[in-house]
Amino acid sequence: MKLKVYADRMSQPSRAVIIFCKVNRIDFEEVRVDISKRQHITPEFKEINPMRKLPAIVDGRFKLFESHAILIYLACVFPGVADHWYPTDLFKRAKINSVLDWHHSNLRRGAVEYVKNTTLAPALGLPLDPQAAAEAEKVLFSSLSNIESVWLKGSGRFLLGGNQPSIADLSLVCELMQLEVLDEKDRSRILSPYKKVQQWMEDTKNATRPHFDEVHQILFKAKTKLQKVRLMSTNSENLKTKLASRM
Amino acid sequence: MKLKVYADRMSQPSRAVIIFCKVNRIDFEEVRVDISKRQHITPEFKEINPMRKLPAIVDGRFKLFESHAILIYLACVFPGVADHWYPTDLFKRAKINSVLDWHHSNLRRGAVEYVKNTTLAPALGLPLDPQAAAEAEKVLFSSLSNIESVWLKGSGRFLLGGNQPSIADLSLVCELMQLEVLDEKDRSRILSPYKKVQQWMEDTKNATRPHFDEVHQILFKAKTKLQKVRLMSTNSENLKTKLASRM
Repeated sequence: MKLKVYADRMSQPSRAVIIFCKVNRIDFEEVRVDISKRQHITPEFKEINPMRKLPAIVDGRFKLFESHAILIYLACVFPGVADHWYPTDLFKRAKINSVLDWHHSNLRRGAVEYVKNTTLAPALGLPLDPQAAAEAEKVLFSSLSNIESVWLKGSGRFLLGGNQPSIADLSLVCELMQLEVLDEKDRSRILSPYKKVQQWMEDTKNATRPHFDEVHQILFKAKTKLQKVRLMSTNSENLKTKLASRM
Repeated sequence: MKLKVYADRMSQPSRAVIIFCKVNRIDFEEVRVDISKRQHITPEFKEINPMRKLPAIVDGRFKLFESHAILIYLACVFPGVADHWYPTDLFKRAKINSVLDWHHSNLRRGAVEYVKNTTLAPALGLPLDPQAAAEAEKVLFSSLSNIESVWLKGSGRFLLGGNQPSIADLSLVCELMQLEVLDEKDRSRILSPYKKVQQWMEDTKNATRPHFDEVHQILFKAKTKLQKVRLMSTNSENLKTKLASRM
């Protein structure tokens, strides 16, 4: 029975798992679970992942969730996955685990909360929260600074001085791609101080093309849609100001 | 050269690593880094862990931080660590990774933020934040509920239906032990609905005695100290009320 990957490509860890499967030619079936339609909280999906989060996989009778655990499992179980993704060398592996653990409470927390509280909250039926956004921004900047100065310290193009990407590169870059839905000026303000981070993102994209771009299509569409909404809102504000100035 | 473990026993992930070493008779030197004296932000410690967090280890020339990554490394590298701590079976290992990943943004986030914002903030030079505490409480309750109904679903005494503890049991129970510094009534209110969780905590303590108790001594001392402070503050409030009623 083919590996099933339950995913919503709007979710960054879902994208990391799908890209990993495609790049490594793992034969899988993608089962779309649309978060915006609340398909992740149905009783059917609870059978797959009782925590109701994406991504999740079913491999034969084996069920698993949490994207880092999934990436490690796929790298270890599927033959043909190149060693650089999750090296058998215990020291290299330990360092990758360290980056992945760090990710949870740092880059992920900062990026998710910032994007939610500046942009996506209304789409989730929540109010925008400027204070939460300000706190998340601090975590995000501190995380980017640590990626630049600690994880990208070596001479290699990838995290931990590697010359080829690991699952940590893929996971963290997919996280940062979520910033695409921000206002473009804001995204540029956040990323522009971090030259190494920008180059590493490019290198990770290049190492996983064409799958990287294909899997991110949905995000670029969402970006265009959100830009239109912003433009309409700005035009409407301008019109109000014009009318008010004539009264 | 002996393994060095940089730790502050007031930090729950530090305790998990120390207990793991002791239970598995790993020969190590504990280097105390006192967070209350801000020793974790010194230039010397930055050489050990550039992220300035505890615990961290130095094994020969190899440096590592993030407690889950450390526990996995120790379980894989040191001979004599029993298989149940981090089984070589890839399916069991994947499930343990899943629990450990889940821990970061759920139990850990809820417990750390709740304890900080109801109790420890003043000791860290921060104000108590009731709103943040209320939000953390939701995450904490949801996490406890998921431990009870998902991770402790099986018939075994430990997480994932195991009959012997894994590094996930140790990590999560050390996290929950941090609730000891709360007011005892509040701790009881939080834990009492979760009977399986309470039994599992006891079972994990029993499986790692006498080291579990010994390594937690500092926490019990802090608990006593905080109780005295609370009592004095209550007595002083009572005195004020008495005096006010006589005026």
